[in-house]
Amino acid sequence: MELTERQKKIVEIVRENEPISGENIAKKLNLSRPTLRSDFAILTMTGILDARPKVGYFYTGQTHDPLLFDGLFETKVAEIMIPPIFIKQESSVYDAVTMLFMYDIGTLFVAENQQLLGIVSRKDLLRTTVTGGDLNKMPVAMIMTRMPNLVTISSEDRLLDAGYKLIEHEIDSIPVMDAVDGITVVGKLSKTSVLRHFVTEAMKQK
Amino acid sequence: MELTERQKKIVEIVRENEPISGENIAKKLNLSRPTLRSDFAILTMTGILDARPKVGYFYTGQTHDPLLFDGLFETKVAEIMIPPIFIKQESSVYDAVTMLFMYDIGTLFVAENQQLLGIVSRKDLLRTTVTGGDLNKMPVAMIMTRMPNLVTISSEDRLLDAGYKLIEHEIDSIPVMDAVDGITVVGKLSKTSVLRHFVTEAMKQK
Repeated sequence: MELTERQKKIVEIVRENEPISGENIAKKLNLSRPTLRSDFAILTMTGILDARPKVGYFYTGQTHDPLLFDGLFETKVAEIMIPPIFIKQESSVYDAVTMLFMYDIGTLFVAENQQLLGIVSRKDLLRTTVTGGDLNKMPVAMIMTRMPNLVTISSEDRLLDAGYKLIEHEIDSIPVMDAVDGITVVGKLSKTSVLRHFVTEAMKQK
Repeated sequence: MELTERQKKIVEIVRENEPISGENIAKKLNLSRPTLRSDFAILTMTGILDARPKVGYFYTGQTHDPLLFDGLFETKVAEIMIPPIFIKQESSVYDAVTMLFMYDIGTLFVAENQQLLGIVSRKDLLRTTVTGGDLNKMPVAMIMTRMPNLVTISSEDRLLDAGYKLIEHEIDSIPVMDAVDGITVVGKLSKTSVLRHFVTEAMKQK
């Protein structure tokens, strides 16, 4: 929901002159009070302005554009995805664990020429390391979750689709595929990235 | 942002009679069209109704009460926290890993009489299991992150505070402490719980 230019002007006037009557706001804009009636209704209903009878309008400190939750989830996956860290399928489980700690991430993508072969997660690695065996000789190909059993998402999908898949399939991150060819992996979207996006947007509102 | 009773009535009328002119909506309510001007403005600006010139108003299918993102983050931590799984500090690393898989979770709380001593995460366990040693003899007390180095949150805090701490400290879950005594652990809030809450609320809007 975007405020109109006139509504933004009204907010500015109130910020600088609060409390100010509707009559006086109208005068400053060279408009009649009835013309502004719906603007006042919107600005008070969204909580941007506060109206006190016989006193006037106050600015509540809330930002101009109240962010609708719906709109936030409409963000495209491409806008917040991050570059994945790749590993080869011949690499050892030990190397995979080292890479997780080196990059401080939770998931590695197993790929060849940007074609996704599988995913190996902290959970897969923990399951393997606790049962023992020679971790230097065991290739990640043996323990990874393989295509086509992976849940993926397209870069043109919405954040809501990604969030839904992350929760529904109980996974920590999801490979983002090229929206055109559908098979080249172009990014990674983790629970953390989605949450960070929400928190950052919410903080901006403060 | 709550719609008024009159705005809800307008939405109902449009749902049943779309497309319908503002004039005809006003007639059904025994009110004049100018009286309804701000209601129409709010209902179209929030995307609940769509207005086409010379045709009339349509219902877009969006729910009556557009959820403001701000409001969602005001939810209390107590409302969405989940019961933590506890482990004793004498328990072995091997038992801790087993419990993680048994309950399919990412973090165990180490506690005695609901007093939190530490936290042991999938990451802590992976670091330990990959380096070897007798996992059956090593107690979790040796590898856990200890109080007071833990980031915690109060059950009366807002979801935004929790989200901010999860992102800022790069942790997967956060212990929720009793809002009154501040030392009894009463729940767990994970990235997953926060994200699930958002996705569920967004899905309700559809």
